[in-house]
Amino acid sequence: MVMLGPNQYGKAEVRLLRVNRSSSSHELRDLSVSVALSGALTATHLAGDNSAVLTTDAQKNTVFAFAADAFDGRGAAEIEDFALLLAEHFVTSQEVISAARVSIEEYAWERLGDHSFARSGREVRTTTVTYDGQQPLVVSGLKDLVLLNSAGSEFWGFAKDRYTTLAETTDRILATAVNAQWRYDRETQWAESYATARDLLMSAFAQTHSYSLQQTLYAMGKQVIEGVPDIAEISLSLPNKHHFEVDMSPFGLENNGEVFYASDRPYGLIQGTVLRDGAEPLLRGWA
Amino acid sequence: MVMLGPNQYGKAEVRLLRVNRSSSSHELRDLSVSVALSGALTATHLAGDNSAVLTTDAQKNTVFAFAADAFDGRGAAEIEDFALLLAEHFVTSQEVISAARVSIEEYAWERLGDHSFARSGREVRTTTVTYDGQQPLVVSGLKDLVLLNSAGSEFWGFAKDRYTTLAETTDRILATAVNAQWRYDRETQWAESYATARDLLMSAFAQTHSYSLQQTLYAMGKQVIEGVPDIAEISLSLPNKHHFEVDMSPFGLENNGEVFYASDRPYGLIQGTVLRDGAEPLLRGWA
Amino acid sequence: MVMLGPNQYGKAEVRLLRVNRSSSSHELRDLSVSVALSGALTATHLAGDNSAVLTTDAQKNTVFAFAADAFDGRGAAEIEDFALLLAEHFVTSQEVISAARVSIEEYAWERLGDHSFARSGREVRTTTVTYDGQQPLVVSGLKDLVLLNSAGSEFWGFAKDRYTTLAETTDRILATAVNAQWRYDRETQWAESYATARDLLMSAFAQTHSYSLQQTLYAMGKQVIEGVPDIAEISLSLPNKHHFEVDMSPFGLENNGEVFYASDRPYGLIQGTVLRDGAEPLLRGWA
Amino acid sequence: MVMLGPNQYGKAEVRLLRVNRSSSSHELRDLSVSVALSGALTATHLAGDNSAVLTTDAQKNTVFAFAADAFDGRGAAEIEDFALLLAEHFVTSQEVISAARVSIEEYAWERLGDHSFARSGREVRTTTVTYDGQQPLVVSGLKDLVLLNSAGSEFWGFAKDRYTTLAETTDRILATAVNAQWRYDRETQWAESYATARDLLMSAFAQTHSYSLQQTLYAMGKQVIEGVPDIAEISLSLPNKHHFEVDMSPFGLENNGEVFYASDRPYGLIQGTVLRDGAEPLLRGWA
Repeated sequence: MVMLGPNQYGKAEVRLLRVNRSSSSHELRDLSVSVALSGALTATHLAGDNSAVLTTDAQKNTVFAFAADAFDGRGAAEIEDFALLLAEHFVTSQEVISAARVSIEEYAWERLGDHSFARSGREVRTTTVTYDGQQPLVVSGLKDLVLLNSAGSEFWGFAKDRYTTLAETTDRILATAVNAQWRYDRETQWAESYATARDLLMSAFAQTHSYSLQQTLYAMGKQVIEGVPDIAEISLSLPNKHHFEVDMSPFGLENNGEVFYASDRPYGLIQGTVLRDGAEPLLRGWA
Repeated sequence: MVMLGPNQYGKAEVRLLRVNRSSSSHELRDLSVSVALSGALTATHLAGDNSAVLTTDAQKNTVFAFAADAFDGRGAAEIEDFALLLAEHFVTSQEVISAARVSIEEYAWERLGDHSFARSGREVRTTTVTYDGQQPLVVSGLKDLVLLNSAGSEFWGFAKDRYTTLAETTDRILATAVNAQWRYDRETQWAESYATARDLLMSAFAQTHSYSLQQTLYAMGKQVIEGVPDIAEISLSLPNKHHFEVDMSPFGLENNGEVFYASDRPYGLIQGTVLRDGAEPLLRGWA
Repeated sequence: MVMLGPNQYGKAEVRLLRVNRSSSSHELRDLSVSVALSGALTATHLAGDNSAVLTTDAQKNTVFAFAADAFDGRGAAEIEDFALLLAEHFVTSQEVISAARVSIEEYAWERLGDHSFARSGREVRTTTVTYDGQQPLVVSGLKDLVLLNSAGSEFWGFAKDRYTTLAETTDRILATAVNAQWRYDRETQWAESYATARDLLMSAFAQTHSYSLQQTLYAMGKQVIEGVPDIAEISLSLPNKHHFEVDMSPFGLENNGEVFYASDRPYGLIQGTVLRDGAEPLLRGWA
Repeated sequence: MVMLGPNQYGKAEVRLLRVNRSSSSHELRDLSVSVALSGALTATHLAGDNSAVLTTDAQKNTVFAFAADAFDGRGAAEIEDFALLLAEHFVTSQEVISAARVSIEEYAWERLGDHSFARSGREVRTTTVTYDGQQPLVVSGLKDLVLLNSAGSEFWGFAKDRYTTLAETTDRILATAVNAQWRYDRETQWAESYATARDLLMSAFAQTHSYSLQQTLYAMGKQVIEGVPDIAEISLSLPNKHHFEVDMSPFGLENNGEVFYASDRPYGLIQGTVLRDGAEPLLRGWA
């Protein structure tokens, strides 16, 4: 009368710092790695029989152990390589595991000296590799890239219903925190493709004269699809971080688009996918 | 060469307090409402033509306006009713909008007096209604319900590989923060069904002698499916909030399962769906 | 030309779960313990000479080790006792340490069964013990107790300047998150005094017909000072969690104090100390 | 029997964006401003008489109104100037207000174009001005500057007691999130002094061969006192963000200082003040 449906398990947020000391100028990779495995795991759910369960503790150990051979100029060079290695390891080494998903966040550091660094605090680089024994799916992206245009943004001509009170404007602040995920349809130079995609997201945001955040979203996605041949699809989730012009007339002052109140909640949330013509939409990270 | 894929937009986290003053003993409903709409919105993405765009500001106003007639003993009585009303309103009143998704979180308050309350701080009640003009999909649940068993939990007999170092145990702390979403396959008494499901999750956690968190997850889901006839499917995401027994032998002390270190990260994450026999798995909230 | 001023060091946020298994009905104490030590520590600052430095790792171990003999019906029964023990230990056992401050947060759990619990999520109980070899200073309190009155709150007759636009009101929502610290001037029954103080804070908030949050703050403090003889002073920090009545007139609707928007920022912040007559004000936790 | 002690009130976290549009290349100042006022306010606390209360809403409006004349090349140029203006305004314009404290956080943005920006996400600049009609006290600083040395850090020769199990090391990761507050004893070029102090904090951290975080703290403070003549005192609060070398021997692997686990809690917390010789220690931000 009751049955087990889809399931997965793993270790989340393994915080790993890898120091490459192969030259006197050290290099850092600062990661948070999450693993999720699925397969023939009915016995543990129904009967508490753990004989097929690779512990999440062992998964954590595996992440650390594999890091010993990565990010040092010889093994995996980028988080996509590392996630691919891990995902393939779990599926090929554990008989009951038929699929693995490895997600990695990478935090950037700025160099202050040969072995000194300051955390950059800007965008976080991400990747999620899903592997089921066939073709791996590599979805990379970034999050928490906060962008703002203080000119070049209008919003008017929208639908009006009984509840519409918003004034039309030809000059507003446009600000967002970019959350982007893109799907590669083949292996690529991960670092270069990432840097290109990130730079295109920023330049498209800056250079689009915007009539809606939807339009800006599409322009950002279009730039990435056109500029990075190995990306087939990109999903963007863009909160509209509202900045309201303060009405100073009660104090006898004018506000010529200079003083704004930055609001936390509620916020608009614009989400959409842009695809290379003919590609199948697979990303629903925002759904 | 580039095309627009799936997209949606709306206002997120409209923080709404509804006070029912119809008797001298007030009642509170404290909500966070998020709206997402989709439909024929290509023009705004490609050309900045907003003529079909109902502003997210108007969506926010609609939430407030509809609250005037809800939660007062006459109109919508529960968050599911309120989300249904809103979702249907957007789809039926806006020609281009073909689907709406309304998500609500509700925060509970304890009564201190006729018009005085303390926020409970325990679990948050949730619902998400999706409506596309056909049958609405109602998925309710809860989050942040933190549970702990100090006995009745074992973990042994698991697979061992090169990276397995975890000791087997017949007595460990089992703790989690329950995130549950369940799908109703018909209208029901929303408040009663919610309370029953929540209580069953708690009692199943407490009463299951556990050999793995997976087993506890299945028992929790099974109890809900068996105990609430209108629920067809439940998806559970259960972090394993590790509590490690402190090794006191270096100080010449014994630790008989009394002193534990509560670890933040990394954590196990066990996710699974339990279904009524014959039901189609629709929930992938955890995916 | 440069000199070392006041300094302290220690281990912060040691997350400790103590399970009392002395009866078949277990009891939980869930704590976060922070230690700060000060004394003759110039050598480590100026010359990197660590011979007088008790490591913060050893401080953490001490917290765990002392917990083995506490909270089990024999040793320390309450967080104040435990903090006193720890503070005295560090000062008396380490020659160079002349003062110790031990701060503890305690998270409450509700019982679900003999060995099953749900975290309550309401207020957090706190204590800070400072000991310098003389009389220990015990400051206890609570935080994150969110209270709301939906009637009995007015705000009018305030000063007006050029920038004052707020409308006067005889009926507003009053909501806050209580952060309170009180100073005991002698040993007491810690658990009973805590429960009494907490209950008085809640009842004073609920029962005061308020003309300002300042007035409510004073009433809350006064109740505690009058109701708990061992408390000499209480410091309260009360954010004014604004709930704005939504103007529905643009939609042709009335809002009779029923629909409110809960705002995050900015917020009012009202802070003050209430003293037993003749007591010296020592608390500046809010400063 | 009960009396009112020290008290203050105000508006906290006014989120303000100031766009300087005086040239085609816009400039942004992104601030969070908090105001606290104190004075002869017994009547509102004891009797709900608000006639002397300048509303916190008016304080918020004042912040916005004053911003209209600031940060545009003519009025206040830096957050210290702006806080001074506001603090003096409240004390001089409100008869009952005898002291004002204005705290400002500033978030930095990187330029992407004439009117396009990306939030930097690195350190937050801060200032707190306290004014009581006499000499204003200006305390500026920064927070959330995360620094890491992957070499040049040792920790050994420390005290051992029964609970000391930490191994000595001549090579460890040293990482912290700098929270610094420094007191100016005269007016200065605020922006230049800030930039110099920040750069000295970073270079001192990077260049000090460290035998303890205390030693690094002192070196950082000393550099600032010696390098910025207008700073009399600096208070530093430095969490020791532990990175533990992972023991790979159970997997038959060596770890030569390359793979680390970044731990969240507990953490060491090292706090201290460094003073110009003869200065009075006033800062106890960390206490």
